Amino acid sequence: MNTFGRIFSLSLFGESHGETVGVLINGCPAGLPLAAADFAVDLKRRRSGAAGTTPRREADRPLIQSGVWKRRTTGAPILIQFQNENVRSQDYEALRDLPRPGHADFVARTKYGRTHDFRGGGQFSGRMTVALVAAGVVAKKLLGGIQVTACLTEAGGSSDIKGAVAEALREKDSIGGIVECRAADVPAGLGEPFFDSAESLLSHLVFAVPGVKGIEFGSGFGGSRMKGSRHNDVLLDRSGKTRTNHAGGINGGLTNGNEIVFRVAVKPPSSIPREQATVNLRTGKPAVISISGRHDACFALRAPVVIEAAAAIVLADLMLLEQRIPRRLES
Amino acid sequence: MNTFGRIFSLSLFGESHGETVGVLINGCPAGLPLAAADFAVDLKRRRSGAAGTTPRREADRPLIQSGVWKRRTTGAPILIQFQNENVRSQDYEALRDLPRPGHADFVARTKYGRTHDFRGGGQFSGRMTVALVAAGVVAKKLLGGIQVTACLTEAGGSSDIKGAVAEALREKDSIGGIVECRAADVPAGLGEPFFDSAESLLSHLVFAVPGVKGIEFGSGFGGSRMKGSRHNDVLLDRSGKTRTNHAGGINGGLTNGNEIVFRVAVKPPSSIPREQATVNLRTGKPAVISISGRHDACFALRAPVVIEAAAAIVLADLMLLEQRIPRRLES
Amino acid sequence: MNTFGRIFSLSLFGESHGETVGVLINGCPAGLPLAAADFAVDLKRRRSGAAGTTPRREADRPLIQSGVWKRRTTGAPILIQFQNENVRSQDYEALRDLPRPGHADFVARTKYGRTHDFRGGGQFSGRMTVALVAAGVVAKKLLGGIQVTACLTEAGGSSDIKGAVAEALREKDSIGGIVECRAADVPAGLGEPFFDSAESLLSHLVFAVPGVKGIEFGSGFGGSRMKGSRHNDVLLDRSGKTRTNHAGGINGGLTNGNEIVFRVAVKPPSSIPREQATVNLRTGKPAVISISGRHDACFALRAPVVIEAAAAIVLADLMLLEQRIPRRLES
Amino acid sequence: MNTFGRIFSLSLFGESHGETVGVLINGCPAGLPLAAADFAVDLKRRRSGAAGTTPRREADRPLIQSGVWKRRTTGAPILIQFQNENVRSQDYEALRDLPRPGHADFVARTKYGRTHDFRGGGQFSGRMTVALVAAGVVAKKLLGGIQVTACLTEAGGSSDIKGAVAEALREKDSIGGIVECRAADVPAGLGEPFFDSAESLLSHLVFAVPGVKGIEFGSGFGGSRMKGSRHNDVLLDRSGKTRTNHAGGINGGLTNGNEIVFRVAVKPPSSIPREQATVNLRTGKPAVISISGRHDACFALRAPVVIEAAAAIVLADLMLLEQRIPRRLES
Repeated sequence: MNTFGRIFSLSLFGESHGETVGVLINGCPAGLPLAAADFAVDLKRRRSGAAGTTPRREADRPLIQSGVWKRRTTGAPILIQFQNENVRSQDYEALRDLPRPGHADFVARTKYGRTHDFRGGGQFSGRMTVALVAAGVVAKKLLGGIQVTACLTEAGGSSDIKGAVAEALREKDSIGGIVECRAADVPAGLGEPFFDSAESLLSHLVFAVPGVKGIEFGSGFGGSRMKGSRHNDVLLDRSGKTRTNHAGGINGGLTNGNEIVFRVAVKPPSSIPREQATVNLRTGKPAVISISGRHDACFALRAPVVIEAAAAIVLADLMLLEQRIPRRLES
Repeated sequence: MNTFGRIFSLSLFGESHGETVGVLINGCPAGLPLAAADFAVDLKRRRSGAAGTTPRREADRPLIQSGVWKRRTTGAPILIQFQNENVRSQDYEALRDLPRPGHADFVARTKYGRTHDFRGGGQFSGRMTVALVAAGVVAKKLLGGIQVTACLTEAGGSSDIKGAVAEALREKDSIGGIVECRAADVPAGLGEPFFDSAESLLSHLVFAVPGVKGIEFGSGFGGSRMKGSRHNDVLLDRSGKTRTNHAGGINGGLTNGNEIVFRVAVKPPSSIPREQATVNLRTGKPAVISISGRHDACFALRAPVVIEAAAAIVLADLMLLEQRIPRRLES
Repeated sequence: MNTFGRIFSLSLFGESHGETVGVLINGCPAGLPLAAADFAVDLKRRRSGAAGTTPRREADRPLIQSGVWKRRTTGAPILIQFQNENVRSQDYEALRDLPRPGHADFVARTKYGRTHDFRGGGQFSGRMTVALVAAGVVAKKLLGGIQVTACLTEAGGSSDIKGAVAEALREKDSIGGIVECRAADVPAGLGEPFFDSAESLLSHLVFAVPGVKGIEFGSGFGGSRMKGSRHNDVLLDRSGKTRTNHAGGINGGLTNGNEIVFRVAVKPPSSIPREQATVNLRTGKPAVISISGRHDACFALRAPVVIEAAAAIVLADLMLLEQRIPRRLES
Repeated sequence: MNTFGRIFSLSLFGESHGETVGVLINGCPAGLPLAAADFAVDLKRRRSGAAGTTPRREADRPLIQSGVWKRRTTGAPILIQFQNENVRSQDYEALRDLPRPGHADFVARTKYGRTHDFRGGGQFSGRMTVALVAAGVVAKKLLGGIQVTACLTEAGGSSDIKGAVAEALREKDSIGGIVECRAADVPAGLGEPFFDSAESLLSHLVFAVPGVKGIEFGSGFGGSRMKGSRHNDVLLDRSGKTRTNHAGGINGGLTNGNEIVFRVAVKPPSSIPREQATVNLRTGKPAVISISGRHDACFALRAPVVIEAAAAIVLADLMLLEQRIPRRLES
């Protein structure tokens, strides 16, 4: 339904080269202080600029169109929009019938037909993540003392991220990376058994981020190679704190009061300047493309704040469901 | 909501040591042939018996209580129940105040209070997966030609699964494993952009399976270490078939017509005969437990058919949403 | 989805002449005292027996199959089943191709095809309301001090209900009626603006009850004929209490702290002993039927407790959403 | 969730005196021709201007911000916005502590606190219906041959609508009315048994329209006073056409192929120029207000196109669910 969340819920809209991208947030409690300035830090973290990020620069000014009055949320739906300003759609005309390998071009055309807005990847673009980051800012404010932080721990398989990016740029290629996200001071008991386990909800939203291909909680894949006697986290006291944290802060789908820890695998971007083989969808003949649009060589560089946002959104919704955030904040 | 799926949707119920466990399926098209015998093969695959699986043996007879008449689905909700017959709750009395390390005992008590039915893990038990397997059987029948298969590729970090299990049993310990799942002949275009990406839905349901701590699609974590030029899957022709399948059959959240491939990390079971340190929740004092209940030393052995079920359920729902399965099957 | 409610949510299952009917309740807070005896009063109110109700007598024993342990809810899904015991399906064999005028027979066959379980109306039967009443009992217990009461104010257009029923029986005919429902001591502010207005949710569930064809809140249809100056309810003080209650306790979709009042129109049952014209669906030829099954001449007699249940279910869900009922009740 | 619909789904946003009001539509099939001009007729029908409607005039220009490219829907979410241009919020400053009798002022303040944007009724304003009408235009285009039409059959209890309005204006008062809606050529079998009955969904959305206090299908309240022998609609042939239409086109919650007919009771507007008693929420003392803002004396005059929109939205969603509208329209 392109809607996520039970109480604090989101719908996204927009396309890479359309008028606008944004998010509609329902269920945000009334009385939360909120102003455009609140978004500055996280939007800047997501914005391009560093080596390895796209030369497309967007101002990313959040237009709060509803749900906020006198710098506080009113309880009504919150619409936040970002105008697309730096659009060069002509870059894409030549690609109409030439699907980029590894990209959504082919499946989008298969699913939606020729009316699909393929420019810049349309609704499949990483551009959409600006809206998720905006919703994450609202979620983080709701979470109060809960700290959600993510960082890139490796890129292109190397912890020397700068070097790996430089090499990819030299080779007209692209690289992926791994993002680690942590949430501290999360109360025990968030999540519902089975279908709405904390892991289910977090992974659901994390896989909505373009380019994510894997997620693991706590010891994750490595933990599947450990013995139970070593993997089991021993409780230190009745608070639920454990000596180790192989569970990544979640047991039986419920948060256990320890730090939530998960890692996310981000694939290398598919749009690269190097020549690549593809097929012309109109003629059926083999073709070669070299992508001249403006793209990230490593969008994993910009992913941590997006993953943080996803985590904060899920936790805010679970906190509301568990009645640990009131539905009205005003004193 | 403990409900999953948009058209073909499930709700689970039951507890490990209660009367019953089962599943209520809504949205199954009318006219599908369905009888108790259809469940035999998959239920047998899930059932215990091999070395490393629990000595608790359940008959697992599926009681189809509604929605089927004259061996065909009627379009009404389908209730499938399994009676719990082989229950030895006294095994758990001693554990009331002693949470097992790595288990949901502590968080369940935190969330639900002392009324929580902790016997055998209650609703957090792996016993619940019998209901998921049953729903998977129905989903597989709906999918017709789409083949979903999963297998255990390693256990305890070793591909010699038998040996790893034997060692764990000798050491009164437990081990995890990795399950690989594949779905062939899936049409292109299943999944919705952003929140209902195919990966989001598959991971959501897979993380609902107790003990799962990681998932990766296609090249997954390994792919995050590849260059884009190598990672991109080159199209061979207009059908969308690609030379490689690093995407695991999904681009931009939509199936691309190639085989869906994902791997799942299953942790070692937390209930082990070895002595373990814990805390007495009543007194707050350190304690030692040795778990005498009947448990799997490696429940990953029984997981493949559960993961298959999860994949089939998601695909059946997406096929209905995409109108590739009719809402009424009878001619 | 055959699922209703955001936190306190229900799914129904079963058929009139199948094995069972029942309800699966999710989201009920842990710690609520609940036992089979709690259902006795409301089930008795719904049961047949009086003149004008069906001679089919069902024991209506609620089997609580999950989610309750030691007479308290555990927080896990609650499955409540009723076995169908007094089934005489042969009554229906003759009707296979003869749709009863005014009944769901024709549309059910159109929608589901010949596999539809038409016996006794299948899932369209008033028998299903036993499950709704059971869920209502749980909801009422959650509501604590909020009193929900409904009664039949007229039958067959007359306030002499006994006389109207006697006449219908004499004439081998059937009659409808009007049910009025009131909920007192409801806090102000329940309901969400627009799509989840209190009226939207109440009407949604009330129209799920077979035979309901109209609903009005407060002054309702009569109010549409009043002037605003008379219709507006004047506030008496800051508590929100009003002198009149033309709004029926709801303004702008939100409860206003006054009594909720609504009236429901129930149609006359379509199954009557009198001869009626229909069409044979196999041959296409006109036919005459006289329905020999066991039916209510006035199921409106049994409707009040069902409407009460619907109201209580909606209010319980809204109270949970508004955090006025905790998610865990145990002290 | 302020979201309605399973496949074709809507979220509304905006406030009467904020920047904007609008709707976000998800699940609209790709390939539907759509341009701003398509909205002109229905928006004009809703707009004020006639005697008895508010002097606030809004241009109501639909800004299609996403989901449409080259005048066709792309399959991506469709955002349609309307700027609020003709706002005179100073009219409301004096009313901050003086809740209008019969209005949502009191409950909104109770629910959301003092941060609620009360200007012009905020999100409770009839202004929101412009967004519903816009979504209705899209739904009607999807419905193709299905004709949905509504008209005002009486106002202030009189069929001389002009006269009734003139009288209300003379008396500085307001009046309500009754809207009748019909949908012809609807296929049989739409709707789901029990919770998603056609009546449940229609009433849910109709009660989301501000000022609606009652709904009845077919014979409705009058039918509750008829005998079954007269109320039952006799089938004429195997097509399902019936001689009478007391069912209003719906049996057992499913459309039966006959015309859908329902009537809606609209209350008189609460904002009237006449002096009215109320209570000052700050001081608790009695007060008198005379409302000087710009208001409709009879918003029922503008309601038919809104009710049509609600009906079309529900039917479009059910048609998609029943696979009678494809998910992709382009040939």
